[in-house]
Amino acid sequence: MIKSLGPKTLIYPAPVLVVGTYNKAGKPNVMTASWGGICCSQPPCVAISLRKVTQSHANILAREAFTISIPSEKHVKEVDYFGLMSGRTTDKFAATKLTPVKSKLVDAPYVKEFPLVLECKLGIHTQFVGEVIDCKADESIIGAGGAIDIKKLKPMVFTPDTQEYYGIGKHVGKVFSAGKGI
Amino acid sequence: MIKSLGPKTLIYPAPVLVVGTYNKAGKPNVMTASWGGICCSQPPCVAISLRKVTQSHANILAREAFTISIPSEKHVKEVDYFGLMSGRTTDKFAATKLTPVKSKLVDAPYVKEFPLVLECKLGIHTQFVGEVIDCKADESIIGAGGAIDIKKLKPMVFTPDTQEYYGIGKHVGKVFSAGKGI
Repeated sequence: MIKSLGPKTLIYPAPVLVVGTYNKAGKPNVMTASWGGICCSQPPCVAISLRKVTQSHANILAREAFTISIPSEKHVKEVDYFGLMSGRTTDKFAATKLTPVKSKLVDAPYVKEFPLVLECKLGIHTQFVGEVIDCKADESIIGAGGAIDIKKLKPMVFTPDTQEYYGIGKHVGKVFSAGKGI
Repeated sequence: MIKSLGPKTLIYPAPVLVVGTYNKAGKPNVMTASWGGICCSQPPCVAISLRKVTQSHANILAREAFTISIPSEKHVKEVDYFGLMSGRTTDKFAATKLTPVKSKLVDAPYVKEFPLVLECKLGIHTQFVGEVIDCKADESIIGAGGAIDIKKLKPMVFTPDTQEYYGIGKHVGKVFSAGKGI
C-alpha cells in the first residue's frame, strides 16, 4: 500500500562526498555534502548544492573550483566531523590530522587519505531541476518513527566504471554522532 | 599511491533512478538514470540530467513534470531494461508488465510496483556545476582493467530519512545485461 509522505529529500542511495576548497587567503577547507552527483557525461561534470552560509559556498565563488574526495568507510568519523563543524570557526584538517593536497589542475585542495578524487572547475551547463511536490512510499519500507528503512527499501547502487548494480551493505555509523569524538 | 585517471564520471555511490514522464499525447514512459539527486533541501528539489535524444527529455519539456521511482533490487531486470530501450520505439510498461500510475499532483506517471516515489515539477533554481578536470584514485582501489573496484573503494551511503551511513552490499546485476531477458 503506497502512502503519501509529503515533499522530502528522499533519494536513495545518496552519496557521501567531501568537498575541498580554498578561501581567498588560501586556507584549505573541507565539508561533507550529500546533495550532489554527476550531471553530464561529456564533458564529465558534477553538480553539488551547498547552502549559502557555508564557508565552502563562499570559497567556490572566490576560487571557481573545488574537489570532491570520496572517502572509504574507515574514515566515517572524520567525514562526519567534516559535516558537523564549520570551516568558519574550525580548521578541520588540523583537527582530524588529515592532509590537504594542493591540486595541480584546479584551485582547490583534496584529502590525501581518501582513495578517489575529482578535481573540478566551474562551468556553464543546464540541468532539469524538479521541485519535489510529494514523496510516496510503500508501507512495507517504512520503519520505526515513520522513516524510510533502507534495509527494507534495498535500493541499488550504480558503479559508473564497471557498469554494475550493487546492493546496500552494513550500517557503519550515525550522522552527526560518529564524528563527535574528534 | 594516487594515480591520475583523467576526467571521468566517477561518483560513488551513484543512484539508480527511474524517471517517469508522459509525452504530448499522454503516453507514459520510463527511463533509468543515474545522473541525478537532491539539489535543495528547502523546498525539496531534485536535479536529473538526461541526454537531449531521449524521449524523457522531450517529455519533460512538454509536460514540465516528472516522477522518480526508486526500485528495489528485486526489479533489477526491469530497471536495466528501462535503461536499455528507448521510449521512442518501445512501450516499456507493456514489455515489462509493470504498471504506470497517473500522479494526482504532477503531470507524470510513476511505477506502481516500486516502493518509493518522488513527484516533481520543473522549478527555477541555481546549482554549482563543476567540470571534472581529472579523477585521481589510489592504486589500492583500482581493479582489473584499470576500473575502480567498488568492493575496494567501500564508499558510504547516506540515508536522508534516518541520517545514517551504510556500506555497499552484494553484487545484484550487470548493467545492460540484466535486462536483456525481457
